[in-house]
Amino acid sequence: MSELLDMAMAIARLMKADNILLLCHKSPDGDTLGSAAALFHALRAMGKTVAVLCADDIPDRYDYMQIEAYEGQFAVEYTVAIDVASIQLFGDAMLAYTANVDLCIDHHASNSQYADGVWLNPEAAATAEMIYELLRGMEAEITPLIADCLYTGVATDTGCFAFANTTARTHQIAGELMALGAHARVLNILHFESKSKGRMQIERDALNSLEYYFNSRCAMISLTKEKIEQSGVDANELESIASLPQKIEDVSVGITLRQLPAGSYKVSVRTADGIDASAICRRLGGGGHTAAAGCEILGSLENAKSAVLAEVEKQLAPAVQAEG
Amino acid sequence: MSELLDMAMAIARLMKADNILLLCHKSPDGDTLGSAAALFHALRAMGKTVAVLCADDIPDRYDYMQIEAYEGQFAVEYTVAIDVASIQLFGDAMLAYTANVDLCIDHHASNSQYADGVWLNPEAAATAEMIYELLRGMEAEITPLIADCLYTGVATDTGCFAFANTTARTHQIAGELMALGAHARVLNILHFESKSKGRMQIERDALNSLEYYFNSRCAMISLTKEKIEQSGVDANELESIASLPQKIEDVSVGITLRQLPAGSYKVSVRTADGIDASAICRRLGGGGHTAAAGCEILGSLENAKSAVLAEVEKQLAPAVQAEG
Repeated sequence: MSELLDMAMAIARLMKADNILLLCHKSPDGDTLGSAAALFHALRAMGKTVAVLCADDIPDRYDYMQIEAYEGQFAVEYTVAIDVASIQLFGDAMLAYTANVDLCIDHHASNSQYADGVWLNPEAAATAEMIYELLRGMEAEITPLIADCLYTGVATDTGCFAFANTTARTHQIAGELMALGAHARVLNILHFESKSKGRMQIERDALNSLEYYFNSRCAMISLTKEKIEQSGVDANELESIASLPQKIEDVSVGITLRQLPAGSYKVSVRTADGIDASAICRRLGGGGHTAAAGCEILGSLENAKSAVLAEVEKQLAPAVQAEG
Repeated sequence: MSELLDMAMAIARLMKADNILLLCHKSPDGDTLGSAAALFHALRAMGKTVAVLCADDIPDRYDYMQIEAYEGQFAVEYTVAIDVASIQLFGDAMLAYTANVDLCIDHHASNSQYADGVWLNPEAAATAEMIYELLRGMEAEITPLIADCLYTGVATDTGCFAFANTTARTHQIAGELMALGAHARVLNILHFESKSKGRMQIERDALNSLEYYFNSRCAMISLTKEKIEQSGVDANELESIASLPQKIEDVSVGITLRQLPAGSYKVSVRTADGIDASAICRRLGGGGHTAAAGCEILGSLENAKSAVLAEVEKQLAPAVQAEG
């Protein structure tokens, strides 16, 4: 177990440290990168030696963050994990640096407390909110570049201020970051409005496969491995397709079937109106949460559809009876 | 021309008035309705007689605003237009009430100043921001219901805080409204994440028609009147489809062709990267702004496509030459 730190203690440890390595999680997103980049620029402005390490390549769209990657340019004395909930999320290649993490700053309630000291705030919508408070506490100058990095973290982890994790404080921080020079419009276009050609293609394929069941209370899309390959979308783009069917008006259960390279179907279930997604998936060997769950089904597409629909029907039936 | 008022003057006139009719614009959106509803509830809490009038039916999804429609239940002594930029936007049926408007509260820079007095703030992202300031200035209690109405106005007019009109103050107000009890998550699902079955169908048709031109610098979608009719989408849903092609990565010119009931094609042009949309449409008998313009073309779909593409090519050519 980690020692639980408050913000002041995290600040004291960072102020004392030098030759600092900031660690991001694999499949890096706007929050782990934006938070690490903001801390990187602030620590460097204090004269410290610092760099950032991530198991996966940083996508080009984050180039504006001007992150300096760690490539052995100094002997690391202090390691800080940013937005990394468990040691598995570092990726295997980073084991040399992640076996002993000195400090972890994170907003995930599920944080496994693998670091020596952890400053955890599950109320924060994004780790970037915590880094903003930390930089204020340190009296670090929040430059327009740092404001851009932090805005990115806050905006991407909240789906542009739409998700349930968005709080009054989230908006307050976003407003302060804009006042400090964050280029909100440019970043919003980059992260929310721009879609790749492959993404348009897979959305088209998904919509062409859309079917409604049970009086339109269930909507289902399915994607074969050929369609997925042809589109060339990356894992994040493909993942976001799974939220599509449940967004349809009056749909309580949204199902996405996508074929894995070996031929089986990965099933994503998203629910509303109190329908239990995990109950649907548990009987099919999967699991998850009340509103989002998943499982994997072998066999043909038609088999997978029938198996899932049989479980969906069971979950919808009591609600139908209760209404009657 | 109207008398230009500041907020304090607008407050003084409202405090003095009674038997007040609040006027919304036709094809009502979240801002005109949310702003009018918030003012309605606040004025009523002050003991005033007040109701709301709109030329078009208020869509069901705004039911939570608990707007009381004006149906002749009192003799109107004072009229206030909310978020209505010109007299044409009231709709003809309202002429009896709109010939002499006492007060207009609006954020459109293009406001034609038809009212006796106008409080105009083009810096506000939404009229709801102005009503929020006004209610604070009046020391009106901002109940959770009023906060919901104002949040709706601010969020819908900024595309959930993504559009260029979003300011630091917009976020600050959104945060304060959440602290006052606005149900942001419920409202975000209702206004941004929920799509009708018809909308999914027309998006599918649009994506099936998607074509790229000029090395993918131009993307075009086209919808026949049959497809539009089959989908059953309303004007607002159809309008939002026009932003789809320009959202594709590296596309500088996005074109949407939709067939009107009489058979001609309505062309919407959206541009990025400094390409002039109005120049493309002007030669085709239309017009608009640098980044968004439109025109109408008679004849077949193929004719319409060729005519537009010829103008697109002219606008892309100089940029290509400048690069070379």
